[in-house]
Amino acid sequence: MRRTDRFPVKGANSLWHIYQTVPFFKVMKNFVVIQLGRYSPSLPFKNWLYRTFLNMKVGDQTSFALMVMPDVMFPERISIGKNSIIGYNTTILAHEYLIDEYRIGDVVIGDRVLIGANSTILPGVHIGNDAIVSAATLVHQDIPAGSFVGGNPMKIIYTAEEMLKRNNIQLEKTL
Amino acid sequence: MRRTDRFPVKGANSLWHIYQTVPFFKVMKNFVVIQLGRYSPSLPFKNWLYRTFLNMKVGDQTSFALMVMPDVMFPERISIGKNSIIGYNTTILAHEYLIDEYRIGDVVIGDRVLIGANSTILPGVHIGNDAIVSAATLVHQDIPAGSFVGGNPMKIIYTAEEMLKRNNIQLEKTL
Amino acid sequence: MRRTDRFPVKGANSLWHIYQTVPFFKVMKNFVVIQLGRYSPSLPFKNWLYRTFLNMKVGDQTSFALMVMPDVMFPERISIGKNSIIGYNTTILAHEYLIDEYRIGDVVIGDRVLIGANSTILPGVHIGNDAIVSAATLVHQDIPAGSFVGGNPMKIIYTAEEMLKRNNIQLEKTL
Repeated sequence: MRRTDRFPVKGANSLWHIYQTVPFFKVMKNFVVIQLGRYSPSLPFKNWLYRTFLNMKVGDQTSFALMVMPDVMFPERISIGKNSIIGYNTTILAHEYLIDEYRIGDVVIGDRVLIGANSTILPGVHIGNDAIVSAATLVHQDIPAGSFVGGNPMKIIYTAEEMLKRNNIQLEKTL
Repeated sequence: MRRTDRFPVKGANSLWHIYQTVPFFKVMKNFVVIQLGRYSPSLPFKNWLYRTFLNMKVGDQTSFALMVMPDVMFPERISIGKNSIIGYNTTILAHEYLIDEYRIGDVVIGDRVLIGANSTILPGVHIGNDAIVSAATLVHQDIPAGSFVGGNPMKIIYTAEEMLKRNNIQLEKTL
Repeated sequence: MRRTDRFPVKGANSLWHIYQTVPFFKVMKNFVVIQLGRYSPSLPFKNWLYRTFLNMKVGDQTSFALMVMPDVMFPERISIGKNSIIGYNTTILAHEYLIDEYRIGDVVIGDRVLIGANSTILPGVHIGNDAIVSAATLVHQDIPAGSFVGGNPMKIIYTAEEMLKRNNIQLEKTL
């Protein structure tokens, strides 16, 4: 179960009421910062932008690829450890707006995590250290540290133990 | 089976002949309108744009999130009911251009439907009222009213009956 | 197994070192060319752009749909045959940057291949002639000529033999 706080709405769907749930100027500011970040060629500059203007937690040497899309409404709910890679055009959502309620949840990504291109990360998930997420994955549940996951819906392809064994076999071949 | 009309082509693939199948100025006009809509912060303005310039049917209070991509060639084949949400960067296709033919089909989305972010909807599908479509879903077949679907390929995760049961259990817990 | 060359890195992750692995001005030039190509309404112009400035191999009459995204770092590793269609917003990757190494691999796409919208093609795969790739597919392995594939992870939906049989049945119905 993903960790989200739920807020029921009355009348029209929750997105129709968007600026009652999040200030218009916050969304505009976030949008401009995110667009700058999506196309910036400097990785350290992106991290500075995201930390300073989006209040995202971004660890040292974490690398955002081209066109990554952090949540435009609640980016301050996103936390990423150090030395991780967020792949091309990955969407990190901290909100979901349903017909009769909206939900907000923290996304917590660990250290040395690799997220493949075009992935979608849903609100309220935790991704453990050293996890590897294949391209185009829908991350709808937590990912254990060190595991290799992928698919839509996401499945564990190799557990941390299996990954260790595979890496050791590869290392032996190299030596 | 999706509902599409098929038009065979001779010689090169159908997309190579694009402006013989749809007028150049129509595509240009649609493209400009869609780009405006993709980035517009006002939801009522988007609906007006899409109804007026794309001839899409869009019901009252239906909410298009950021960067939704309606079909750039045949958006008039898209119909969405009222009080629905189309999630971030969802692609709604009313055409498919194959090597030796092209196909056009209506996309019909009901009332109070939720489409999750980054989904792809193929031409010729019907999505019933109150359906919930998970993020990143490939909608390649019809979706029964009230059901919860997701995945690539799309599968029914909960039928309408199961959704009702789940909602009742949740309601009882709240009371 | 995809065909990639592997380059280990020391210290921070490989993407953090991006401009030590590929010249800054090459990435900038590629980015500008790709953005022009993504939004150009003329298909022959796109092919000229990609051949001339990205050193991609693109066969006659091959059609790139709107917003296709060739690899921004190593597009010269992409080769596409003649009379193929690359669908809307498809991502063709020739690189993958992991935490402790980066990998580069050729993407080879045959003649009369159809790639559906929103697909992601990973480095080092070969796609055989006349293959059909469904929308939103993650192409993480080779695709045999003439087959119909889709899903995430990708699966063969119909083999070349099954496709032939299906086409013959359809032809008989038409006659």
